[in-house]
Amino acid sequence: MTGKVYLVGAGPGAPDLLTLRAARLLAEADVVFHDALVPEPILALAAGAEKVAVGKRCGSHSTAQRFINKRLADAARTHRVVVRLKGGDPMIFGRAQEEIAYLRAQGIPLEVVPGITAALAASASLGTSLTQRGIARSVAFVTPRIGPDEPASRWLDAAMAADTVAIYMGAHDASAIAAALMAAGKSAATPVAIAEGATLPGERIAHGTLAELAELVRGAGGPIVILMGEVCRRQTAARFAAVRRVGDALA
Amino acid sequence: MTGKVYLVGAGPGAPDLLTLRAARLLAEADVVFHDALVPEPILALAAGAEKVAVGKRCGSHSTAQRFINKRLADAARTHRVVVRLKGGDPMIFGRAQEEIAYLRAQGIPLEVVPGITAALAASASLGTSLTQRGIARSVAFVTPRIGPDEPASRWLDAAMAADTVAIYMGAHDASAIAAALMAAGKSAATPVAIAEGATLPGERIAHGTLAELAELVRGAGGPIVILMGEVCRRQTAARFAAVRRVGDALA
Repeated sequence: MTGKVYLVGAGPGAPDLLTLRAARLLAEADVVFHDALVPEPILALAAGAEKVAVGKRCGSHSTAQRFINKRLADAARTHRVVVRLKGGDPMIFGRAQEEIAYLRAQGIPLEVVPGITAALAASASLGTSLTQRGIARSVAFVTPRIGPDEPASRWLDAAMAADTVAIYMGAHDASAIAAALMAAGKSAATPVAIAEGATLPGERIAHGTLAELAELVRGAGGPIVILMGEVCRRQTAARFAAVRRVGDALA
Repeated sequence: MTGKVYLVGAGPGAPDLLTLRAARLLAEADVVFHDALVPEPILALAAGAEKVAVGKRCGSHSTAQRFINKRLADAARTHRVVVRLKGGDPMIFGRAQEEIAYLRAQGIPLEVVPGITAALAASASLGTSLTQRGIARSVAFVTPRIGPDEPASRWLDAAMAADTVAIYMGAHDASAIAAALMAAGKSAATPVAIAEGATLPGERIAHGTLAELAELVRGAGGPIVILMGEVCRRQTAARFAAVRRVGDALA
């Protein structure tokens, strides 16, 4: 018997921002291997499944990844529905390819189920479209955070060239990120916005300029997306308060 | 009485790739204003709603947009739940900001519900992660297609600078797009992949090089996403057939 591994995006955190397919697979799952960041109410949807936390916060990346790969393959040989649940979308800063390559090499059937990636959740919470006619016809998702074993990244090139930029995993380096962008020629007055824990209870958003970025993210406890570009200009900030109220009323 | 407008992403086409929140709002909707591209099985989820197609294929953009803005506001004054349903995610090439700005100016409560954007669906169908450790730490979503009233776009800068590129609305200009990228310095051998109607029945995918791009998209009938970058290299192509089979078996 060989089951199947579903690489599933858990979305930004709100349980009802899972896709219908993801919710169905969780309900059917025999085993769920999940990242540390997936909230409890989402895991609760996998009522009948064994849940295994495989966060990679401890130990070296490569060891932990090999261990996860092997556990996924082993599980598929003894269970029908194996869900690998990752925050956001599995294919955007989700380290999916290492698992996909291993499972394919082992002949394990797999399917990728997309999820709402953090930048889209941030965009929705802010009420700020990432593209806008006449203002932004490109948006880049970048991360300045790379592993010690990785080659240098061209993230700065992409961030300089795109009309709108969404920076993932940038909260801890916000000061260095702003400095690098300004050294490369971005104006200190470039509009930025941040969303922390977008769609989750306690969600926080703020607007400012690139020069103020470090201050905007200060004290952040949860995952943050930094947005940068003309679409974040403060004309939207006043309108933004209204959106927050609406969201709160719904919750 | 003032209702609320929900700007909802319909996702890439498969009804079960809607979010749970989107499905609930469709079920509760009094009126649904939808784009031409939203498939019938998704509209069917809004069983009790009046459905209004507001595709912008005919007439000028600005006239049609003003008309849609006004109809949304009018609907919110006479109904409780008004859904504005857009393909993919509303905030990525969805022209959302014009409607958001108008509704805010009118004092109409609104909320944005994110959806799976086409590039994420293409990535899932291809089994190709848009970012990969050591290979791609940035991904740009771009479109070379701009309106006659828009300023020149820097899409080419973003496409040249990002490690991975997803090109939206590029099928009809594939030949010109490839020529522009090669003239700017991209190698003719740069790996590309396309996904047509990703997640829909009849979904089609193909791999090739930038020089072959026009040939790859030839005959396309549905919406296409073009992916470009090292993540698309053909090593993945062989593995790809297996993913297709799996997807077919599930359908």
